[in-house]
Amino acid sequence: MEYKFSDRISALQPSIIREILKGTGGTDIIPFAAGNPAAESFPVNEMSQIAAELFASSPAAALQYGITEGYPVLREQTRIRMQEKYSVGNDDIDDTLIVSGGQQGIELAAKVLCNEGDTVICESPSFIGALNAFRSYNLNLKGVDLENDGMDLDKLEAILKNDSKVKLLYVISTFQNPSGVTTSLEKRKALLELADKYDFIIIEDSPYFELRYSGDYVPPIKALDKNGRVIFAGSYSKVLAPGIRMGFATAPKPIASKMTVAKQVSDVHTNQFFQMLVSEFLKKHSIDAHIDSIKNLYRVKRDRMMDAVKAYFPEEITVNRPDGGLFLWCMMPKGYDSAAFCKTLAPYKVAAVPGAAFVIDQSEISSGIRLNFSLPTLEQIDRGIASLAEAAKCFIRK
Amino acid sequence: MEYKFSDRISALQPSIIREILKGTGGTDIIPFAAGNPAAESFPVNEMSQIAAELFASSPAAALQYGITEGYPVLREQTRIRMQEKYSVGNDDIDDTLIVSGGQQGIELAAKVLCNEGDTVICESPSFIGALNAFRSYNLNLKGVDLENDGMDLDKLEAILKNDSKVKLLYVISTFQNPSGVTTSLEKRKALLELADKYDFIIIEDSPYFELRYSGDYVPPIKALDKNGRVIFAGSYSKVLAPGIRMGFATAPKPIASKMTVAKQVSDVHTNQFFQMLVSEFLKKHSIDAHIDSIKNLYRVKRDRMMDAVKAYFPEEITVNRPDGGLFLWCMMPKGYDSAAFCKTLAPYKVAAVPGAAFVIDQSEISSGIRLNFSLPTLEQIDRGIASLAEAAKCFIRK
Repeated sequence: MEYKFSDRISALQPSIIREILKGTGGTDIIPFAAGNPAAESFPVNEMSQIAAELFASSPAAALQYGITEGYPVLREQTRIRMQEKYSVGNDDIDDTLIVSGGQQGIELAAKVLCNEGDTVICESPSFIGALNAFRSYNLNLKGVDLENDGMDLDKLEAILKNDSKVKLLYVISTFQNPSGVTTSLEKRKALLELADKYDFIIIEDSPYFELRYSGDYVPPIKALDKNGRVIFAGSYSKVLAPGIRMGFATAPKPIASKMTVAKQVSDVHTNQFFQMLVSEFLKKHSIDAHIDSIKNLYRVKRDRMMDAVKAYFPEEITVNRPDGGLFLWCMMPKGYDSAAFCKTLAPYKVAAVPGAAFVIDQSEISSGIRLNFSLPTLEQIDRGIASLAEAAKCFIRK
Repeated sequence: MEYKFSDRISALQPSIIREILKGTGGTDIIPFAAGNPAAESFPVNEMSQIAAELFASSPAAALQYGITEGYPVLREQTRIRMQEKYSVGNDDIDDTLIVSGGQQGIELAAKVLCNEGDTVICESPSFIGALNAFRSYNLNLKGVDLENDGMDLDKLEAILKNDSKVKLLYVISTFQNPSGVTTSLEKRKALLELADKYDFIIIEDSPYFELRYSGDYVPPIKALDKNGRVIFAGSYSKVLAPGIRMGFATAPKPIASKMTVAKQVSDVHTNQFFQMLVSEFLKKHSIDAHIDSIKNLYRVKRDRMMDAVKAYFPEEITVNRPDGGLFLWCMMPKGYDSAAFCKTLAPYKVAAVPGAAFVIDQSEISSGIRLNFSLPTLEQIDRGIASLAEAAKCFIRK
């Protein structure tokens, strides 16, 4: 039988990254493709103990239906921490929701704010999960080239002047995925001014901002938001564990209220047991100390991968050293198609994500390669980068 | 600041039921409003032991990112159980996905199959969570009156003849929410014939079908589906626990594939830890025996509520005895507005859901009242029904 799908979905393909992962999981392939945290960063003992306590003390609450906005204690803990530590959120105009991973915050924001055919401006390149969420509502994506300090503002304003259908600007402000770029304070302020001038909402996706290994802290755009222009999509995936699907969104109250209605028809509420577990973790342990331990782990891995890249990679490939996050972003010489390159990697027992996964216009050819350093071991980093270098020499110089 | 929301969302209100629950939770009000399972039905000891084992043996897998389609072992266990026990699903044409509660299966199906303005036919009355999911995609809902054995087929075919935009028919085939009606085998077959004749897809929502306390088993519509016309939305909420948000969808492969893409942009995957926990539960324990124990618990509660209703309710209110599920559906005399009645209940310390929550046309006045018997204790049932009867006499005879 032939099925007819909705216009919004019929052309949408699964994430290239997740397809690569399905093909390379559970094998002897060195995993530079994933965006996975290191398993040794999960606070397993603490979580295990809290889980046992929850089953003993409050199983009825932890296994029963909860409210859509989130477990009230966790909402409040999240709100207070984000507000006191990062000035994200505001008692008066903002509200914090618990969502099933940062991704859900982005998808709900798109659903409640955009009609089909509206425009979303994105950094180019950008995170495929968000791009596909926008595509799944038939939105019109327009990419703005990334410079070393964020979007090219001239190109951005050129779009804004000519497109009255811009509803959203999507930005991964700190340690951008895949480029590693952090938007400067000046450009953050400029984005807010443009949001006021051209009347759009900013989705600030910030799953990595607490994982800084070098350089100076830059406040979130949301911390500078005086007029209720910013939705902050936050995540516990990279600082606790991703498999529990736990994130949050801090948004102007009217937007948070509509996102709640949209979440209600999607998954009713986020897993109640793990909302309570994360809440107890935040009560009993220092998440800041835990994040420090993750940073110490990943800083070493980043440095090791940078060293290996310098030692092994052919000079034709350029790499920027990121100040945080999970990824190195490499560029092959202009004109080389990294998607074709990544397909040659299987015999080298290494997996990487081609830039094609992150382009806004899906017909565009990319010479970028994203390498994850959080998941592989130091030994895998050395061996994998050496293999990748061999493959690259072969591909570039053949 | 004034925000402009998408057309699909701007008129959508939160579920009346969930708003009632927010207002009546944690108090001394007798809970007939919820659709919550009894906490004593949760297999707490078994889950607690499995959780401890998972943290000890495979924390890296249980806390790490998983694949969107679901934990492969749980998918396969679910598929095999549904196929062998209920003939739901088929190796060749169907696929089974794990979703974050049965609700998500319904929402994803609507998203991938319907364009804005398409028609969804629903039973009238029907489950607000599904109705709101359809409304959240700007779909056109058309209700078909329920008879004692399912939809009025003449009225259904009258709609089908005159509306070429019907893409979906949504049916809660067994122990319908709120009416308790089970669609007869004859009508199930007729729905499939109409689906072929008028080219639409059936969403069969069946969260309660294993909770039968009397009467004869009727096979799911999906078990009769030879042509790939049916999406079965299943749930572990009522047979294990709802707070873990664990459901499944069995759908023709091309539809399941698009639903996977849509799920990927929504929550990436369902909580991995609890997917593995449910999988271990199914391996180590008999879910059939567990369901039998729930049925024994709820059968007594249903009978107790029916007895109390007969003893206390004024004769003007009619009630059908449901053969399963979680609800009694009561009708006040025609013309009485049960929404106004339910607002009088606070001093009586009892909460119920007015039929207005389940109407297709939101301007319609309903005289129905839904009463849940799974959550309250036997003592609460006696006391609550007596109070409700007092309130009803007052309201009807004043």
